Amino acid sequence: MFISFEGIDFCGKTTQINLLKKYLENIGRRVEIIREPGGTAISEKIREILLNKKHLEMCDETEIFLFSAARAQVVREVIRPLIARGCVVIADRFHDSTTAYQGFGRGLSADAVKKINEFATGGTIPDLTFYLRLSVEESTKRKNVCKADLDRIEKSDDVFYSNVIAGYEKIALEFPNRIKGIDGEKSAIEVHNDILSILYETMNIASDRRGVI
Amino acid sequence: MFISFEGIDFCGKTTQINLLKKYLENIGRRVEIIREPGGTAISEKIREILLNKKHLEMCDETEIFLFSAARAQVVREVIRPLIARGCVVIADRFHDSTTAYQGFGRGLSADAVKKINEFATGGTIPDLTFYLRLSVEESTKRKNVCKADLDRIEKSDDVFYSNVIAGYEKIALEFPNRIKGIDGEKSAIEVHNDILSILYETMNIASDRRGVI
Repeated sequence: MFISFEGIDFCGKTTQINLLKKYLENIGRRVEIIREPGGTAISEKIREILLNKKHLEMCDETEIFLFSAARAQVVREVIRPLIARGCVVIADRFHDSTTAYQGFGRGLSADAVKKINEFATGGTIPDLTFYLRLSVEESTKRKNVCKADLDRIEKSDDVFYSNVIAGYEKIALEFPNRIKGIDGEKSAIEVHNDILSILYETMNIASDRRGVI
Repeated sequence: MFISFEGIDFCGKTTQINLLKKYLENIGRRVEIIREPGGTAISEKIREILLNKKHLEMCDETEIFLFSAARAQVVREVIRPLIARGCVVIADRFHDSTTAYQGFGRGLSADAVKKINEFATGGTIPDLTFYLRLSVEESTKRKNVCKADLDRIEKSDDVFYSNVIAGYEKIALEFPNRIKGIDGEKSAIEVHNDILSILYETMNIASDRRGVI
């Protein structure tokens, strides 16, 4: 099984991924988390180029090709073998991020983004995607609280993030069976419970049989 | 004006590029050489990942995305501004290398390669391309003489190089006005003269007006 988490920065993906991993491991599943871009030696080197704060001159086409290069590698070197071994793979961002960030955020052609995504994934896309909804205002608030050391993309402005959110909302409507929107402004434990409900609902497993997922 | 040089490894591109640069500078043109992949800070970092001898696990999709990322950056950051300033840009490999190496050599889909090339170049392709023809045998012979420290791609086998040559021949037939095949097994000075003849022929400039190119 292959699950991805999506949403704008500071939407709580990492917290939720760790909670879900722990839950699934407690019921006996082997779980691996893939951080995008990254997850292989080559992909981590690509990550360094992508998120380097000095690379302000990076053009949008270079950005989408680099994300796609990192993804193509982690799909074939790591994700496919893990799925084949029966592992649950949880991806912290996947191809929907490219649609939302590079397509809607940067304004690259939707058709080009779709074709590049298809070529990078080679058809290996998540069975289920949790999209954690968060407003730009709330993201900014959390960003200020964290006083995080922001990477090149996290430094983008509010207009960019509004476009990214519009992109996520559009693909959530387009693929309702796969992409499940969740209110990311709720508390972490509420979001976690929403995720578990959707997980079991989607898998058509009644709550009394949860132990067998 | 934008000129590219193509051909399999050890076909003599670098020698010919330097001879042409010198010639054009002697007649008063400003000339800049672009080495692919490379030519910008970001593209050079991508080059390091691509040619690193340790990266034997790199999959074909990652390879084409990385070449395209490096090209997208050098096109927008360097090549377009140079052309706009009236400079002659000579590229040591460009998008035809991707068609020949990743398309025909690696066997990636011709349609995908075409679309990725179009997206990376954004329509900025050479006005003239010199394809230096060389047999696999002659390339191997030169490789052995040089005792060069080979990068990841130069270490490929003869079948790969035969496919790359088949690719170059196909696109030379497809784009006869742009891609000019030249016998790369001749001496360096003969090849240089062939290049100059084609250059003037293509530019429709009679030999007695050579000084004004």
